Amino acid sequence: MRRSGRVRVTFEPQGKKVLVERGVTLLEAVVRAGLRIRSECGGFGKCGKCRVLVRNPRALGEVTESEKSLLSRDELEEGMRLACQARLLGDAEVYLPPESRIEGRKILEAGLGREVKLEPVVRKVHLLVPEPTHEDVRADYDRLLESLLGVLRASGIDLREPKVDQEFLKDLPKALRRAKWDVTVVVRDEEILCLEEGNTERENYGLAIDIGTSKIVIYLVDVEEGEVLGVRSVENPQLMFGEDIMSRLTFAMESEENRLLLQKILVEEINKEIRAISGGRGVNRDRIYEAVVVGNTAMHHLFLGIETRYLAISPYVPAVRGPVEARAKSLGLEINERGYVFTLPVVAGFVGADGVADLLATGIHVSDDVSLLLDIGTNTEVFLGNRDRILACSAASGPAFEGGHIKFGMKASSGAIERVSIDPKTLEVSYRTVDGGRPIGLCGSAVIDVVAEMLRCGLIDRHGRMREEIGSPRMRRKEGELEFVLAWRQEAGLDEDITITQKDIRELQLAKAAIYAAQQILMRRMGVSPGDISRVLVAGAFGSGINVENAVMIGLFPEEHRRKVQFVGNTAIVGAKMALVSRKAREEAMDLLTMIEYVELSLDPSFEEEFIGATELPHRDLERFPSVKEFLEKG
Amino acid sequence: MRRSGRVRVTFEPQGKKVLVERGVTLLEAVVRAGLRIRSECGGFGKCGKCRVLVRNPRALGEVTESEKSLLSRDELEEGMRLACQARLLGDAEVYLPPESRIEGRKILEAGLGREVKLEPVVRKVHLLVPEPTHEDVRADYDRLLESLLGVLRASGIDLREPKVDQEFLKDLPKALRRAKWDVTVVVRDEEILCLEEGNTERENYGLAIDIGTSKIVIYLVDVEEGEVLGVRSVENPQLMFGEDIMSRLTFAMESEENRLLLQKILVEEINKEIRAISGGRGVNRDRIYEAVVVGNTAMHHLFLGIETRYLAISPYVPAVRGPVEARAKSLGLEINERGYVFTLPVVAGFVGADGVADLLATGIHVSDDVSLLLDIGTNTEVFLGNRDRILACSAASGPAFEGGHIKFGMKASSGAIERVSIDPKTLEVSYRTVDGGRPIGLCGSAVIDVVAEMLRCGLIDRHGRMREEIGSPRMRRKEGELEFVLAWRQEAGLDEDITITQKDIRELQLAKAAIYAAQQILMRRMGVSPGDISRVLVAGAFGSGINVENAVMIGLFPEEHRRKVQFVGNTAIVGAKMALVSRKAREEAMDLLTMIEYVELSLDPSFEEEFIGATELPHRDLERFPSVKEFLEKG
Repeated sequence: MRRSGRVRVTFEPQGKKVLVERGVTLLEAVVRAGLRIRSECGGFGKCGKCRVLVRNPRALGEVTESEKSLLSRDELEEGMRLACQARLLGDAEVYLPPESRIEGRKILEAGLGREVKLEPVVRKVHLLVPEPTHEDVRADYDRLLESLLGVLRASGIDLREPKVDQEFLKDLPKALRRAKWDVTVVVRDEEILCLEEGNTERENYGLAIDIGTSKIVIYLVDVEEGEVLGVRSVENPQLMFGEDIMSRLTFAMESEENRLLLQKILVEEINKEIRAISGGRGVNRDRIYEAVVVGNTAMHHLFLGIETRYLAISPYVPAVRGPVEARAKSLGLEINERGYVFTLPVVAGFVGADGVADLLATGIHVSDDVSLLLDIGTNTEVFLGNRDRILACSAASGPAFEGGHIKFGMKASSGAIERVSIDPKTLEVSYRTVDGGRPIGLCGSAVIDVVAEMLRCGLIDRHGRMREEIGSPRMRRKEGELEFVLAWRQEAGLDEDITITQKDIRELQLAKAAIYAAQQILMRRMGVSPGDISRVLVAGAFGSGINVENAVMIGLFPEEHRRKVQFVGNTAIVGAKMALVSRKAREEAMDLLTMIEYVELSLDPSFEEEFIGATELPHRDLERFPSVKEFLEKG
Repeated sequence: MRRSGRVRVTFEPQGKKVLVERGVTLLEAVVRAGLRIRSECGGFGKCGKCRVLVRNPRALGEVTESEKSLLSRDELEEGMRLACQARLLGDAEVYLPPESRIEGRKILEAGLGREVKLEPVVRKVHLLVPEPTHEDVRADYDRLLESLLGVLRASGIDLREPKVDQEFLKDLPKALRRAKWDVTVVVRDEEILCLEEGNTERENYGLAIDIGTSKIVIYLVDVEEGEVLGVRSVENPQLMFGEDIMSRLTFAMESEENRLLLQKILVEEINKEIRAISGGRGVNRDRIYEAVVVGNTAMHHLFLGIETRYLAISPYVPAVRGPVEARAKSLGLEINERGYVFTLPVVAGFVGADGVADLLATGIHVSDDVSLLLDIGTNTEVFLGNRDRILACSAASGPAFEGGHIKFGMKASSGAIERVSIDPKTLEVSYRTVDGGRPIGLCGSAVIDVVAEMLRCGLIDRHGRMREEIGSPRMRRKEGELEFVLAWRQEAGLDEDITITQKDIRELQLAKAAIYAAQQILMRRMGVSPGDISRVLVAGAFGSGINVENAVMIGLFPEEHRRKVQFVGNTAIVGAKMALVSRKAREEAMDLLTMIEYVELSLDPSFEEEFIGATELPHRDLERFPSVKEFLEKG
């Protein structure tokens, strides 16, 4: 047998071969071969997990004391060894039994068919740490760390040595001994967060949180499996300080107390939901180690307790663009007390982390095809592009599409009219409410329907003016203002008629004009026309309730996009969840930050012109909507 | 003139040449040439500091608006340009005027002739940050960071992008505007600690703290200049809970409250001293950003609030070896509230961060020569080695050398006898006290003198037994125990005779035996003999008061070391200060951690034998002390 030089090790069933220096352990050979093997002690011959079957046992050094104690006589006779103990003396043929192998990481399928690698930033590692003896007087932290790095290395992960932090060290000696050196370590990036007794690897939870101006959505996620365990959706409690962002920013500007109050009630509400969602799923909140938070820039700043004054003042600069980390505890979030909040980056004052999450979830930035992505709300974020370039802007569309600033407007909840049609002959109105009950108001999709139908029936002209002269009992003047009755008091769940007013129609015109103009400006900046665009993704609570035909009729989307519109739901929360379970997704978010070109609409010389033209129905330039033109001219 | 490709730039007075792509700025060329240039805005044409004189102005692009506003017409006519604005169109000859250059870093001369590079971990950078405009809507943090990275790059430092932390961001928008974008940023490693208004670059302070079992020493340091501004030395307030480490660890073991009390009083005492020292020097405590702390492992753990129980229980493992960082605030230390505490690494349970600091200060680990380093105290740390290898151990020498466990023992303070000689004929005693006044006790150096002199005069035999039979009025029995009078009541500052007792002599024998044996074991382990050792460095409060001749006489040092002993004072605080002002010194400390081999004396099979032999005076094996042997046999 050769006494020096290198030996060849063949691993089955993978059929991998590797050359290593004589004398190293089989574990080292496994790692060098790029294979992965179980370990819980990090190569200290203590856990007995790195079992391998050796075809030619004489290629290895003598059986060690620890092998004798961890393997049975029969196993030893079969040729079973511990990889961390057996030293290579000659060429060896080694079989890795299934129980010793680590399988490849699973793949998460996100909405819209995007696949991301499941690789959570928070990892849990079960360890059997060798106890101190007179012969092994390593410091507690050192022995823990060496085992940890060993286990990670055996499973194919090379971790940079984490920073030592006094908070973690304080009680480490006691914790290790109380657990009898059988612990699970929680690692986040390059920090050891905490230690738990025994094997708790299976309990690795996180939160994805989307803080919308009106609604907060929370996912409780098993980050190891990439699985959503529970969902909560709740009103943003800041609503009591104003419906829209600007009124909240104004409130926050009045005093630091106000600003911190907005943060406090937000966090309290989220905590309430965390308690409910974790309680409901029997999940210990101490085992939630991270919350990935998205939201528009104002919500992002308010949640993080960051000064918001300059978001409200021209030139509307955010305090920060990149991802922000904070201890959950410092924000008052009730998860593991060493846990973290991580926010996705924001693009600009009016394009927030929710927009970045939308992109992550839809993946328009990794496609060859050019897509449009609209997250419709009080501020509508519009993204246009593909893998080569992404343009982004924010249009101040107002709350009309969410039922705001509409006389009988409301959210798409119980009692809301969500679909409307008007008989062109009788001018009679048919409608459908969300739950089929008596109507008490109308939501955004119904407003679109009403305006489109009124245009079709000639109840309004292309300037949005109600034609009083048409002479319908539903068309009337109240306190000097024209309105059209959608539901009579008798059929309504209110003590009055439900109407749409001339002012409501104006609100809708302004809203759709802003969104249409934003799309036009971005297309022009990129040098593409509607025909070049392969998909128009519409995100947001808006949901699938909208009638695309009617949306085109009023000129919300270019006519060429009629068949390209896809409603993708709340992609912001999906993107947040992706970032929670995938390191790769976070890297992608960082890449997006340099990739996205923000377009400030108010600085674009043609925006005003576009906007004014788009206030007409469907547009001042009817040539842009040939089929609408045909219909109107025919009628 | 060439339109593409590269251009050559020659810099005077350095005579450096560099080839760069046509079109880049002169600033870029400066950086590529490895030169350094002043900047306060990071290359945004705002501060006007990066002035250069161009010999052939036509090699550069047009003068920009910002140059027109920051340079006078005369300057522009002379060929003065701003390096960050001027773009290279052709080969250029450029002169860097003295006011634009950054001089090389200063060198710090530590004790013992060691030189370390002055490169503080905390840096302050004055910035003129460009204000946001409609054309420049970068986030506040981004614009700050980009200016910072630009300035650092211009001055030859490439910083990794720091992590963004919510605490820092919170008030950033307000702080920047309050300061009118004229700020000084405090950077530590890869973290931005805080922001100050205006230019405060000159106020960059730090603390070096040596927490000894009995004494705390604090240096206030100007870290930019490497200069000590003030020194405080104060008793460790934990003394009220026990003189030695073990009694404090025992007290701490009783309850967590006890342990935290020991921390609290320590921190309070240090805070008091920080207030005094900074107040005295007119230094704002908010401008102290870091404290480098050293101490033995027990003090290190107690100060950091780390569980100490297992330091007191076999096998005496520390909680951590590596350097520990903590926010000063979390420990209650009253410096800048975002400032840090940094502790040097510890070697083992009984060889602490003070030992590592001793090594840093003396540099025995970078020398070719083999040196011994002893830090004498209740536990005496012994280091042996050179650049190839360092052995370390700790000897439980007891407090005798500090005057502890000696009947009339005391510290080397006012009234302490520090030198003693005995007339071999008359057996009369001469002594000297620290301040020349009446004696009230004797300190460690006097104990050595007394024992050596008593041995010389035959008042004790080689076993340390007092020879009652010698018949001196000073030799007497009191309450059954033999003692020898050093100072009669009449001459003393006490109402009784000052004596040395048989038990005192035993204490000294045990102490010196432990230290001698430790040196022997390390020498044996390393395979060197006393003759191979070039220096014996004695650190600690022990000071230069010790008479080496007498120390050899009692067998504290091998006879061969008589002329090699050097007293080096408190090297622990010097080492701490080095780590405070020099990144290189911290790296060295880390290297030491892997380099030092800790020797557990109690596990060495020959230690007990060595120890017992060394309890005799000077040693059971008289052949080891030939000159003492000759003297004793002559006498």
